[in-house]
Amino acid sequence: MHSSLPIGVFDSGVGGLTVLAALRARLPHESAIYLGDTARLPYGTKSVESVTRYAMQATEHLVARGIKLLVIACNTASAVSLDPLREQFAPLRVIGVVEPGAEAAVAASTRQRHLVLATESTVKRHAYARAIRARQPEADVEEIACSMLVALAEEGWTEGPIAEAVAKEYLGPVLARPAAAQPDTIVLGCTHFPLLAGAIRAVAGPVPTLVDSATTTAEAVAGLLAASNLTNTAPGPGAIRLLATDGRERFARAGARFLGEALRPDAVEIVDL
Amino acid sequence: MHSSLPIGVFDSGVGGLTVLAALRARLPHESAIYLGDTARLPYGTKSVESVTRYAMQATEHLVARGIKLLVIACNTASAVSLDPLREQFAPLRVIGVVEPGAEAAVAASTRQRHLVLATESTVKRHAYARAIRARQPEADVEEIACSMLVALAEEGWTEGPIAEAVAKEYLGPVLARPAAAQPDTIVLGCTHFPLLAGAIRAVAGPVPTLVDSATTTAEAVAGLLAASNLTNTAPGPGAIRLLATDGRERFARAGARFLGEALRPDAVEIVDL
Repeated sequence: MHSSLPIGVFDSGVGGLTVLAALRARLPHESAIYLGDTARLPYGTKSVESVTRYAMQATEHLVARGIKLLVIACNTASAVSLDPLREQFAPLRVIGVVEPGAEAAVAASTRQRHLVLATESTVKRHAYARAIRARQPEADVEEIACSMLVALAEEGWTEGPIAEAVAKEYLGPVLARPAAAQPDTIVLGCTHFPLLAGAIRAVAGPVPTLVDSATTTAEAVAGLLAASNLTNTAPGPGAIRLLATDGRERFARAGARFLGEALRPDAVEIVDL
Repeated sequence: MHSSLPIGVFDSGVGGLTVLAALRARLPHESAIYLGDTARLPYGTKSVESVTRYAMQATEHLVARGIKLLVIACNTASAVSLDPLREQFAPLRVIGVVEPGAEAAVAASTRQRHLVLATESTVKRHAYARAIRARQPEADVEEIACSMLVALAEEGWTEGPIAEAVAKEYLGPVLARPAAAQPDTIVLGCTHFPLLAGAIRAVAGPVPTLVDSATTTAEAVAGLLAASNLTNTAPGPGAIRLLATDGRERFARAGARFLGEALRPDAVEIVDL
Protein backbone atom coordinates (compact mmCIF):
# COMPACT_ATOMS: atom_id res chain seq x y z
CA MET A 1 0.00 0.00 0.00
CA HIS A 2 1.71 3.17 -1.15
CA SER A 3 0.77 6.75 -0.33
CA SER A 4 0.92 7.76 -3.99
CA LEU A 5 -1.97 5.43 -4.90
CA PRO A 6 -5.32 7.11 -5.57
CA ILE A 7 -8.32 7.13 -3.27
CA GLY A 8 -11.14 5.02 -4.70
CA VAL A 9 -14.61 6.56 -4.62
CA PHE A 10 -17.65 4.45 -5.45
CA ASP A 11 -21.23 5.53 -6.00
CA SER A 12 -24.34 4.22 -7.74
CA GLY A 13 -24.15 7.14 -10.17
CA VAL A 14 -23.10 10.76 -10.28
CA GLY A 15 -24.36 11.93 -6.86
CA GLY A 16 -21.11 10.86 -5.18
CA LEU A 17 -19.27 13.50 -7.17
CA THR A 18 -20.33 15.90 -4.38
CA VAL A 19 -18.13 13.78 -2.11
CA LEU A 20 -15.32 13.79 -4.68
CA ALA A 21 -15.55 17.60 -4.85
CA ALA A 22 -15.24 17.81 -1.04
CA LEU A 23 -12.25 15.43 -1.13
CA ARG A 24 -10.49 17.58 -3.73
CA ALA A 25 -11.09 20.71 -1.68
CA ARG A 26 -9.81 19.10 1.54
CA LEU A 27 -7.00 16.98 0.03
CA PRO A 28 -5.88 18.69 -3.19
CA HIS A 29 -2.69 16.60 -3.49
CA GLU A 30 -4.54 13.28 -3.50
CA SER A 31 -5.40 11.48 -6.71
CA ALA A 32 -8.76 9.79 -6.94
CA ILE A 33 -10.52 7.25 -9.11
CA TYR A 34 -14.29 7.55 -9.16
CA LEU A 35 -16.61 4.75 -10.27
CA GLY A 36 -20.30 5.44 -10.85
CA ASP A 37 -22.43 2.32 -11.42
CA THR A 38 -24.75 4.15 -13.81
CA ALA A 39 -25.86 0.92 -15.55
CA ARG A 40 -27.63 -0.23 -12.41
CA LEU A 41 -28.67 2.95 -10.62
CA PRO A 42 -30.65 3.81 -8.63
CA TYR A 43 -29.64 1.66 -5.65
CA GLY A 44 -32.09 3.28 -3.23
CA THR A 45 -35.09 1.14 -4.17
CA LYS A 46 -33.22 -2.16 -4.59
CA SER A 47 -32.72 -5.04 -2.18
CA VAL A 48 -29.85 -5.42 0.28
CA GLU A 49 -28.62 -8.47 -1.65
CA SER A 50 -28.50 -6.69 -5.00
CA VAL A 51 -26.87 -3.55 -3.62
CA THR A 52 -24.22 -5.59 -1.80
CA ARG A 53 -23.46 -7.67 -4.91
CA TYR A 54 -23.07 -4.51 -6.99
CA ALA A 55 -20.88 -2.85 -4.34
CA MET A 56 -18.65 -5.94 -4.19
CA GLN A 57 -18.16 -5.92 -7.96
CA ALA A 58 -17.36 -2.21 -8.01
CA THR A 59 -14.87 -2.55 -5.17
CA GLU A 60 -13.15 -5.49 -6.87
CA HIS A 61 -12.72 -3.35 -9.96
CA LEU A 62 -11.22 -0.44 -8.03
CA VAL A 63 -8.96 -2.70 -5.97
CA ALA A 64 -7.64 -4.32 -9.16
CA ARG A 65 -6.69 -0.87 -10.45
CA GLY A 66 -4.90 -0.07 -7.18
CA ILE A 67 -6.34 2.19 -4.46
CA LYS A 68 -5.12 2.98 -0.96
CA LEU A 69 -8.54 3.62 0.59
CA LEU A 70 -12.15 3.25 -0.52
CA VAL A 71 -14.88 5.81 0.02
CA ILE A 72 -18.43 4.52 -0.44
CA ALA A 73 -19.98 7.81 -1.50
CA CYS A 74 -23.44 6.27 -1.89
CA ASN A 75 -25.60 6.49 1.22
CA THR A 76 -27.58 3.39 0.31
CA ALA A 77 -24.46 1.25 -0.23
CA SER A 78 -22.94 2.70 2.95
CA ALA A 79 -26.10 1.82 4.86
CA VAL A 80 -26.37 -1.77 3.66
CA SER A 81 -22.92 -2.92 2.46
CA LEU A 82 -20.21 -1.28 4.59
CA ASP A 83 -19.59 -4.26 6.89
CA PRO A 84 -19.53 -6.92 4.14
CA LEU A 85 -17.11 -4.76 2.11
CA ARG A 86 -14.77 -4.26 5.06
CA GLU A 87 -14.75 -8.01 5.72
CA GLN A 88 -14.27 -9.04 2.12
CA PHE A 89 -11.51 -6.55 1.28
CA ALA A 90 -9.60 -6.35 4.60
CA PRO A 91 -7.11 -4.81 5.26
CA LEU A 92 -8.33 -2.17 2.77
CA ARG A 93 -9.63 0.87 4.64
CA VAL A 94 -13.27 1.53 3.75
CA ILE A 95 -15.17 4.68 4.75
CA GLY A 96 -18.89 5.15 4.18
CA VAL A 97 -20.84 8.41 4.29
CA VAL A 98 -23.38 7.48 6.95
CA GLU A 99 -21.05 7.59 9.98
CA PRO A 100 -19.53 10.97 9.01
CA GLY A 101 -23.04 12.27 8.28
CA ALA A 102 -24.26 11.15 11.70
CA GLU A 103 -21.20 12.75 13.30
CA ALA A 104 -21.96 16.03 11.56
CA ALA A 105 -25.64 15.90 12.55
CA VAL A 106 -24.85 15.37 16.23
CA ALA A 107 -22.29 18.18 16.18
CA ALA A 108 -24.71 20.59 14.47
CA SER A 109 -27.63 19.92 16.81
CA THR A 110 -28.44 21.55 20.14
CA ARG A 111 -31.66 19.66 20.88
CA GLN A 112 -30.70 16.36 19.21
CA ARG A 113 -33.91 16.20 17.21
CA HIS A 114 -32.96 14.97 13.74
CA LEU A 115 -34.91 14.52 10.55
CA VAL A 116 -33.17 12.27 8.01
CA LEU A 117 -34.15 12.42 4.33
CA ALA A 118 -32.85 9.35 2.51
CA THR A 119 -33.67 6.59 0.04
CA GLU A 120 -36.11 3.77 0.71
CA SER A 121 -33.31 1.24 1.44
CA THR A 122 -31.36 3.56 3.74
CA VAL A 123 -34.52 4.31 5.72
CA LYS A 124 -35.49 0.64 5.89
CA ARG A 125 -32.11 -0.17 7.51
CA HIS A 126 -32.42 2.76 9.95
CA ALA A 127 -28.76 3.38 9.22
CA TYR A 128 -28.75 7.02 10.29
CA ALA A 129 -30.90 6.45 13.37
CA ARG A 130 -28.48 3.79 14.60
CA ALA A 131 -25.39 5.88 13.80
CA ILE A 132 -26.80 8.98 15.51
CA ARG A 133 -28.00 7.06 18.59
CA ALA A 134 -24.61 5.38 18.89
CA ARG A 135 -23.30 8.89 19.58
CA GLN A 136 -26.35 10.35 21.39
CA PRO A 137 -28.50 7.56 22.85
CA GLU A 138 -31.30 9.99 23.74
CA ALA A 139 -31.47 11.58 20.29
CA ASP A 140 -34.83 11.79 18.55
CA VAL A 141 -34.39 10.60 14.95
CA GLU A 142 -37.09 10.48 12.30
CA GLU A 143 -36.38 9.10 8.82
CA ILE A 144 -38.34 9.76 5.62
CA ALA A 145 -37.85 7.91 2.31
CA CYS A 146 -37.80 10.54 -0.47
CA SER A 147 -37.45 8.75 -3.83
CA MET A 148 -38.85 11.71 -5.77
CA LEU A 149 -36.02 13.95 -4.60
CA VAL A 150 -33.60 11.59 -6.36
CA ALA A 151 -35.61 11.87 -9.58
CA LEU A 152 -35.72 15.68 -9.34
CA ALA A 153 -31.94 15.89 -8.93
CA GLU A 154 -31.34 13.53 -11.86
CA GLU A 155 -33.70 15.53 -14.08
CA GLY A 156 -32.02 18.78 -13.02
CA TRP A 157 -35.24 20.24 -11.59
CA THR A 158 -33.53 21.31 -8.40
CA GLU A 159 -35.33 24.57 -7.73
CA GLY A 160 -38.68 26.23 -8.40
CA PRO A 161 -42.28 25.37 -7.55
CA ILE A 162 -42.15 21.66 -8.44
CA ALA A 163 -39.04 20.97 -6.35
CA GLU A 164 -40.58 22.88 -3.44
CA ALA A 165 -43.95 21.12 -3.77
CA VAL A 166 -42.22 17.72 -3.68
CA ALA A 167 -40.13 18.74 -0.64
CA LYS A 168 -43.30 20.00 1.06
CA GLU A 169 -45.13 16.73 0.35
CA TYR A 170 -42.42 14.85 2.27
CA LEU A 171 -41.71 17.41 5.01
CA GLY A 172 -45.20 18.81 5.52
CA PRO A 173 -46.42 16.50 8.31
CA VAL A 174 -43.24 17.09 10.34
CA LEU A 175 -43.29 20.85 9.83
CA ALA A 176 -46.94 21.09 10.88
CA ARG A 177 -46.03 20.09 14.44
CA PRO A 178 -45.47 22.50 17.34
CA ALA A 179 -42.03 24.15 17.31
CA ALA A 180 -40.71 22.08 20.23
CA ALA A 181 -41.42 18.85 18.34
CA GLN A 182 -39.64 19.97 15.20
CA PRO A 183 -36.17 18.85 14.16
CA ASP A 184 -33.20 21.17 14.51
CA THR A 185 -31.20 19.30 11.86
CA ILE A 186 -32.26 17.93 8.49
CA VAL A 187 -29.77 15.30 7.37
CA LEU A 188 -29.37 15.10 3.57
CA GLY A 189 -28.96 11.33 3.62
CA CYS A 190 -28.49 10.80 -0.11
CA THR A 191 -25.71 12.31 -2.23
CA HIS A 192 -28.33 13.74 -4.60
CA PHE A 193 -29.99 15.88 -1.97
CA PRO A 194 -27.42 18.68 -1.50
CA LEU A 195 -28.50 19.86 -4.97
CA LEU A 196 -31.99 20.37 -3.54
CA ALA A 197 -30.82 22.25 -0.45
CA GLY A 198 -32.46 25.48 -1.68
CA ALA A 199 -35.87 23.90 -2.14
CA ILE A 200 -35.64 22.07 1.19
CA ARG A 201 -34.61 25.29 2.92
CA ALA A 202 -37.52 27.17 1.30
CA VAL A 203 -39.94 24.63 2.75
CA ALA A 204 -38.30 24.05 6.14
CA GLY A 205 -37.62 27.70 6.96
CA PRO A 206 -34.45 29.14 8.50
CA VAL A 207 -34.29 27.14 11.74
CA PRO A 208 -33.03 23.61 11.02
CA THR A 209 -29.41 23.10 10.01
CA LEU A 210 -29.06 21.19 6.74
CA VAL A 211 -26.40 18.51 7.25
CA ASP A 212 -24.49 17.13 4.30
CA SER A 213 -21.98 14.32 4.79
CA ALA A 214 -19.59 15.32 1.99
CA THR A 215 -17.42 17.65 4.04
CA THR A 216 -17.27 15.44 7.13
CA THR A 217 -16.51 12.41 4.96
CA ALA A 218 -13.56 14.29 3.42
CA GLU A 219 -12.44 15.15 6.95
CA ALA A 220 -12.69 11.49 8.00
CA VAL A 221 -10.63 10.45 4.97
CA ALA A 222 -7.96 13.05 5.80
CA GLY A 223 -7.79 11.78 9.37
CA LEU A 224 -7.55 8.13 8.37
CA LEU A 225 -4.85 8.79 5.76
CA ALA A 226 -2.79 10.73 8.30
CA ALA A 227 -3.24 8.04 10.96
CA SER A 228 -2.15 5.35 8.48
CA ASN A 229 0.80 7.27 7.05
CA LEU A 230 -0.88 7.20 3.67
CA THR A 231 -1.18 10.95 2.99
CA ASN A 232 0.30 11.76 -0.41
CA THR A 233 3.28 14.03 0.15
CA ALA A 234 4.07 14.64 -3.52
CA PRO A 235 3.63 18.28 -4.55
CA GLY A 236 1.10 19.43 -7.13
CA PRO A 237 -2.57 18.67 -7.58
CA GLY A 238 -3.75 15.06 -7.68
CA ALA A 239 -5.20 13.49 -10.82
CA ILE A 240 -8.85 12.48 -11.14
CA ARG A 241 -10.11 9.55 -13.20
CA LEU A 242 -13.80 9.03 -13.87
CA LEU A 243 -15.29 5.60 -14.61
CA ALA A 244 -18.93 4.70 -15.24
CA THR A 245 -20.72 1.50 -16.17
CA ASP A 246 -23.03 3.16 -18.71
CA GLY A 247 -23.82 6.36 -20.59
CA ARG A 248 -20.76 8.59 -21.04
CA GLU A 249 -22.81 11.60 -22.27
CA ARG A 250 -25.41 11.39 -19.54
CA PHE A 251 -22.69 10.93 -16.89
CA ALA A 252 -20.86 14.04 -18.11
CA ARG A 253 -24.05 16.12 -18.34
CA ALA A 254 -25.52 15.13 -14.95
CA GLY A 255 -22.12 14.83 -13.29
CA ALA A 256 -21.21 18.44 -14.06
CA ARG A 257 -24.06 19.57 -11.79
CA PHE A 258 -22.74 17.49 -8.90
CA LEU A 259 -19.03 18.14 -9.35
CA GLY A 260 -19.59 21.83 -9.98
CA GLU A 261 -17.49 22.01 -13.14
CA ALA A 262 -17.83 21.10 -16.82
CA LEU A 263 -17.11 17.47 -17.75
CA ARG A 264 -16.25 16.22 -21.23
CA PRO A 265 -17.91 12.91 -22.19
CA ASP A 266 -14.59 11.57 -23.52
CA ALA A 267 -13.07 12.05 -20.05
CA VAL A 268 -15.42 9.32 -18.79
CA GLU A 269 -14.20 5.74 -19.22
CA ILE A 270 -16.90 3.06 -19.56
CA VAL A 271 -16.17 -0.17 -17.67
CA ASP A 272 -18.00 -3.49 -17.41
CA LEU A 273 -18.31 -4.94 -13.89
CA MET B 1 -43.94 -24.79 -30.38
CA HIS B 2 -47.22 -25.77 -28.78
CA SER B 3 -50.37 -23.64 -28.39
CA SER B 4 -50.61 -24.53 -24.69
CA LEU B 5 -47.30 -22.80 -23.90
CA PRO B 6 -47.54 -19.43 -22.13
CA ILE B 7 -46.98 -16.04 -23.71
CA GLY B 8 -43.78 -14.44 -22.39
CA VAL B 9 -44.01 -10.80 -21.34
CA PHE B 10 -40.87 -8.85 -20.54
CA ASP B 11 -40.51 -5.40 -19.01
CA SER B 12 -37.90 -3.41 -17.12
CA GLY B 13 -40.14 -3.44 -14.06
CA VAL B 14 -43.81 -3.40 -13.16
CA GLY B 15 -45.13 -0.96 -15.80
CA GLY B 16 -45.60 -3.76 -18.34
CA LEU B 17 -48.26 -5.26 -16.09
CA THR B 18 -50.66 -2.83 -17.83
CA VAL B 19 -49.93 -4.82 -21.01
CA LEU B 20 -50.39 -8.11 -19.14
CA ALA B 21 -53.77 -6.85 -17.88
CA ALA B 22 -54.82 -6.00 -21.45
CA LEU B 23 -53.65 -9.46 -22.63
CA ARG B 24 -55.72 -11.19 -19.94
CA ALA B 25 -58.78 -9.17 -20.89
CA ARG B 26 -58.39 -9.90 -24.61
CA LEU B 27 -57.11 -13.50 -24.34
CA PRO B 28 -58.44 -14.95 -21.06
CA HIS B 29 -57.57 -18.55 -22.00
CA GLU B 30 -53.88 -17.80 -22.53
CA SER B 31 -51.31 -18.43 -19.84
CA ALA B 32 -48.53 -15.88 -19.41
CA ILE B 33 -45.17 -15.61 -17.74
CA TYR B 34 -44.13 -12.08 -16.86
CA LEU B 35 -40.54 -11.06 -16.13
CA GLY B 36 -39.78 -7.62 -14.66
CA ASP B 37 -36.07 -6.72 -14.57
CA THR B 38 -36.47 -4.74 -11.35
CA ALA B 39 -32.80 -5.13 -10.40
CA ARG B 40 -31.74 -2.96 -13.32
CA LEU B 41 -34.65 -0.60 -13.91
CA PRO B 42 -35.14 2.02 -15.15
CA TYR B 43 -34.12 1.30 -18.75
CA GLY B 44 -35.24 4.69 -20.09
CA THR B 45 -32.06 6.55 -19.19
CA LYS B 46 -29.59 3.78 -20.09
CA SER B 47 -27.59 3.18 -23.26
CA VAL B 48 -28.74 1.12 -26.24
CA GLU B 49 -25.97 -1.41 -25.52
CA SER B 50 -26.98 -1.94 -21.89
CA VAL B 51 -30.72 -2.16 -22.65
CA THR B 52 -30.11 -4.66 -25.46
CA ARG B 53 -27.85 -6.81 -23.28
CA TYR B 54 -30.46 -6.85 -20.50
CA ALA B 55 -33.28 -7.65 -22.97
CA MET B 56 -31.25 -10.55 -24.43
CA GLN B 57 -30.68 -12.03 -20.97
CA ALA B 58 -34.36 -11.72 -20.04
CA THR B 59 -35.46 -13.31 -23.30
CA GLU B 60 -33.02 -16.20 -22.87
CA HIS B 61 -34.52 -16.86 -19.45
CA LEU B 62 -38.10 -16.86 -20.75
CA VAL B 63 -37.21 -19.00 -23.78
CA ALA B 64 -35.56 -21.55 -21.50
CA ARG B 65 -38.79 -21.81 -19.51
CA GLY B 66 -40.80 -22.31 -22.72
CA ILE B 67 -42.89 -19.60 -24.35
CA LYS B 68 -44.74 -19.51 -27.66
CA LEU B 69 -44.45 -15.76 -28.26
CA LEU B 70 -42.63 -12.86 -26.61
CA VAL B 71 -44.15 -9.47 -25.87
CA ILE B 72 -41.65 -6.71 -25.09
CA ALA B 73 -43.91 -4.65 -22.87
CA CYS B 74 -41.23 -2.03 -22.23
CA ASN B 75 -41.31 0.88 -24.68
CA THR B 76 -37.60 1.56 -24.29
CA ALA B 77 -36.60 -2.06 -24.99
CA SER B 78 -39.10 -2.16 -27.88
CA ALA B 79 -37.56 1.01 -29.29
CA VAL B 80 -33.94 -0.09 -29.10
CA SER B 81 -33.85 -3.92 -28.98
CA LEU B 82 -36.72 -5.34 -31.06
CA ASP B 83 -34.66 -6.11 -34.19
CA PRO B 84 -31.69 -7.69 -32.35
CA LEU B 85 -34.10 -9.86 -30.32
CA ARG B 86 -35.96 -11.05 -33.43
CA GLU B 87 -32.66 -11.94 -35.10
CA GLN B 88 -31.16 -13.69 -32.10
CA PHE B 89 -34.23 -15.74 -31.17
CA ALA B 90 -35.74 -16.51 -34.61
CA PRO B 91 -38.13 -18.19 -35.29
CA LEU B 92 -39.65 -17.00 -31.98
CA ARG B 93 -42.36 -14.42 -32.65
CA VAL B 94 -41.52 -11.14 -30.88
CA ILE B 95 -43.95 -8.21 -30.57
CA GLY B 96 -42.98 -4.82 -29.15
CA VAL B 97 -45.32 -2.08 -27.96
CA VAL B 98 -44.12 0.73 -30.22
CA GLU B 99 -45.62 -0.53 -33.50
CA PRO B 100 -49.06 -1.24 -31.95
CA GLY B 101 -48.89 2.16 -30.21
CA ALA B 102 -48.13 3.91 -33.48
CA GLU B 103 -50.95 2.00 -35.16
CA ALA B 104 -53.36 3.15 -32.45
CA ALA B 105 -52.18 6.76 -32.68
CA VAL B 106 -52.69 6.91 -36.46
CA ALA B 107 -56.15 5.35 -36.14
CA ALA B 108 -57.17 7.78 -33.37
CA SER B 109 -56.01 10.92 -35.18
CA THR B 110 -57.90 13.05 -37.70
CA ARG B 111 -55.20 15.69 -38.28
CA GLN B 112 -52.18 13.38 -37.82
CA ARG B 113 -50.53 15.73 -35.35
CA HIS B 114 -49.04 13.53 -32.62
CA LEU B 115 -47.32 14.30 -29.34
CA VAL B 116 -45.34 11.36 -27.93
CA LEU B 117 -44.43 11.28 -24.24
CA ALA B 118 -41.69 8.71 -23.64
CA THR B 119 -38.39 7.97 -21.93
CA GLU B 120 -35.08 9.59 -22.85
CA SER B 121 -33.87 6.52 -24.79
CA THR B 122 -37.13 6.03 -26.70
CA VAL B 123 -37.12 9.69 -27.72
CA LYS B 124 -33.46 9.58 -28.71
CA ARG B 125 -34.19 6.71 -31.11
CA HIS B 126 -37.27 8.51 -32.55
CA ALA B 127 -38.94 5.12 -32.42
CA TYR B 128 -42.51 6.45 -32.41
CA ALA B 129 -41.85 9.12 -35.03
CA ARG B 130 -40.48 6.49 -37.41
CA ALA B 131 -43.30 4.02 -36.71
CA ILE B 132 -46.01 6.69 -37.16
CA ARG B 133 -44.45 8.10 -40.35
CA ALA B 134 -44.12 4.59 -41.78
CA ARG B 135 -47.94 4.58 -41.71
CA GLN B 136 -48.59 8.30 -42.40
CA PRO B 137 -45.57 9.88 -44.12
CA GLU B 138 -47.01 13.40 -43.73
CA ALA B 139 -47.74 13.04 -40.01
CA ASP B 140 -46.43 15.69 -37.64
CA VAL B 141 -44.79 13.95 -34.67
CA GLU B 142 -43.21 15.65 -31.68
CA GLU B 143 -41.50 13.63 -28.93
CA ILE B 144 -40.80 14.72 -25.35
CA ALA B 145 -38.62 12.82 -22.85
CA CYS B 146 -40.48 12.74 -19.51
CA SER B 147 -38.30 10.98 -16.92
CA MET B 148 -40.15 12.57 -14.00
CA LEU B 149 -43.42 10.93 -15.05
CA VAL B 150 -41.74 7.55 -14.53
CA ALA B 151 -40.66 8.57 -11.03
CA LEU B 152 -44.16 9.82 -10.16
CA ALA B 153 -45.74 6.53 -11.24
CA GLU B 154 -43.20 4.49 -9.27
CA GLU B 155 -43.78 6.60 -6.14
CA GLY B 156 -47.55 6.28 -6.57
CA TRP B 157 -48.05 10.05 -6.87
CA THR B 158 -50.26 9.66 -9.92
CA GLU B 159 -52.77 12.44 -9.28
CA GLY B 160 -53.02 15.78 -7.53
CA PRO B 161 -51.16 19.07 -7.84
CA ILE B 162 -47.61 17.66 -8.07
CA ALA B 163 -48.47 15.20 -10.85
CA GLU B 164 -50.26 17.96 -12.73
CA ALA B 165 -47.44 20.46 -12.24
CA VAL B 166 -44.93 17.93 -13.62
CA ALA B 167 -47.18 17.15 -16.60
CA LYS B 168 -47.58 20.89 -17.22
CA GLU B 169 -43.81 21.43 -17.10
CA TYR B 170 -43.39 18.95 -19.96
CA LEU B 171 -46.53 19.80 -21.97
CA GLY B 172 -46.72 23.55 -21.35
CA PRO B 173 -44.72 24.78 -24.36
CA VAL B 174 -46.76 22.62 -26.76
CA LEU B 175 -50.11 23.59 -25.23
CA ALA B 176 -49.27 27.30 -25.41
CA ARG B 177 -49.36 27.17 -29.22
CA PRO B 178 -52.33 28.16 -31.41
CA ALA B 179 -55.03 25.49 -31.62
CA ALA B 180 -54.15 24.49 -35.19
CA ALA B 181 -50.56 23.70 -34.16
CA GLN B 182 -51.60 21.50 -31.26
CA PRO B 183 -51.59 17.70 -31.29
CA ASP B 184 -54.81 15.73 -31.57
CA THR B 185 -53.24 12.63 -30.01
CA ILE B 186 -50.96 12.28 -27.00
CA VAL B 187 -49.17 8.93 -27.17
CA LEU B 188 -48.38 7.44 -23.73
CA GLY B 189 -45.07 6.01 -24.90
CA CYS B 190 -44.00 4.37 -21.64
CA THR B 191 -45.92 1.68 -19.78
CA HIS B 192 -45.86 3.82 -16.64
CA PHE B 193 -47.77 6.67 -18.19
CA PRO B 194 -51.33 5.24 -18.35
CA LEU B 195 -51.35 5.60 -14.55
CA LEU B 196 -50.89 9.35 -15.06
CA ALA B 197 -53.63 9.68 -17.67
CA GLY B 198 -55.80 11.74 -15.30
CA ALA B 199 -53.07 14.29 -14.61
CA ILE B 200 -52.14 14.49 -18.31
CA ARG B 201 -55.80 14.94 -19.25
CA ALA B 202 -56.19 17.69 -16.61
CA VAL B 203 -53.32 19.60 -18.19
CA ALA B 204 -54.03 18.87 -21.87
CA GLY B 205 -57.77 19.52 -21.78
CA PRO B 206 -60.49 17.44 -23.45
CA VAL B 207 -59.36 17.66 -27.09
CA PRO B 208 -56.41 15.30 -27.64
CA THR B 209 -56.99 11.55 -27.56
CA LEU B 210 -54.70 9.77 -25.10
CA VAL B 211 -53.25 6.72 -26.83
CA ASP B 212 -52.06 3.75 -24.82
CA SER B 213 -50.43 0.80 -26.58
CA ALA B 214 -51.62 -1.89 -24.12
CA THR B 215 -54.93 -2.64 -25.85
CA THR B 216 -53.56 -2.55 -29.40
CA THR B 217 -50.62 -4.71 -28.34
CA ALA B 218 -53.05 -7.31 -26.97
CA GLU B 219 -54.93 -7.12 -30.29
CA ALA B 220 -51.69 -7.63 -32.23
CA VAL B 221 -50.85 -10.66 -30.07
CA ALA B 222 -54.32 -12.14 -30.66
CA GLY B 223 -53.91 -11.67 -34.42
CA LEU B 224 -50.46 -13.21 -34.53
CA LEU B 225 -51.49 -16.22 -32.42
CA ALA B 226 -54.48 -16.84 -34.69
CA ALA B 227 -52.37 -16.48 -37.84
CA SER B 228 -49.79 -18.92 -36.47
CA ASN B 229 -52.30 -21.50 -35.19
CA LEU B 230 -50.98 -20.91 -31.68
CA THR B 231 -54.18 -19.75 -29.94
CA ASN B 232 -54.78 -21.82 -26.83
CA THR B 233 -57.99 -23.76 -27.31
CA ALA B 234 -58.11 -25.33 -23.84
CA PRO B 235 -61.10 -24.16 -21.78
CA GLY B 236 -60.76 -22.22 -18.53
CA PRO B 237 -58.70 -19.20 -17.58
CA GLY B 238 -54.95 -19.17 -18.26
CA ALA B 239 -52.39 -19.18 -15.45
CA ILE B 240 -50.15 -16.21 -14.70
CA ARG B 241 -46.60 -16.45 -13.34
CA LEU B 242 -44.72 -13.41 -12.12
CA LEU B 243 -40.92 -13.23 -12.09
CA ALA B 244 -38.71 -10.32 -11.01
CA THR B 245 -34.96 -9.84 -10.67
CA ASP B 246 -35.20 -7.97 -7.36
CA GLY B 247 -37.47 -6.86 -4.54
CA ARG B 248 -40.48 -9.14 -4.13
CA GLU B 249 -42.30 -6.75 -1.73
CA ARG B 250 -41.75 -3.67 -3.84
CA PHE B 251 -42.80 -5.54 -6.98
CA ALA B 252 -46.04 -6.68 -5.34
CA ARG B 253 -46.79 -3.23 -3.93
CA ALA B 254 -46.05 -1.22 -7.08
CA GLY B 255 -47.28 -3.96 -9.40
CA ALA B 256 -50.74 -3.98 -7.85
CA ARG B 257 -51.25 -0.43 -9.10
CA PHE B 258 -50.38 -1.42 -12.67
CA LEU B 259 -52.18 -4.76 -12.81
CA GLY B 260 -55.24 -3.36 -11.08
CA GLU B 261 -55.50 -6.10 -8.46
CA ALA B 262 -53.83 -7.09 -5.20
CA LEU B 263 -50.55 -9.04 -5.47
CA ARG B 264 -49.01 -11.17 -2.73
CA PRO B 265 -45.20 -10.85 -2.40
CA ASP B 266 -44.87 -14.64 -2.19
CA ALA B 267 -46.53 -14.95 -5.61
CA VAL B 268 -43.46 -13.22 -7.09
CA GLU B 269 -40.50 -15.48 -7.92
CA ILE B 270 -37.05 -13.86 -7.81
CA VAL B 271 -34.71 -14.91 -10.63
CA ASP B 272 -31.09 -14.11 -11.44
CA LEU B 273 -30.35 -13.26 -15.08
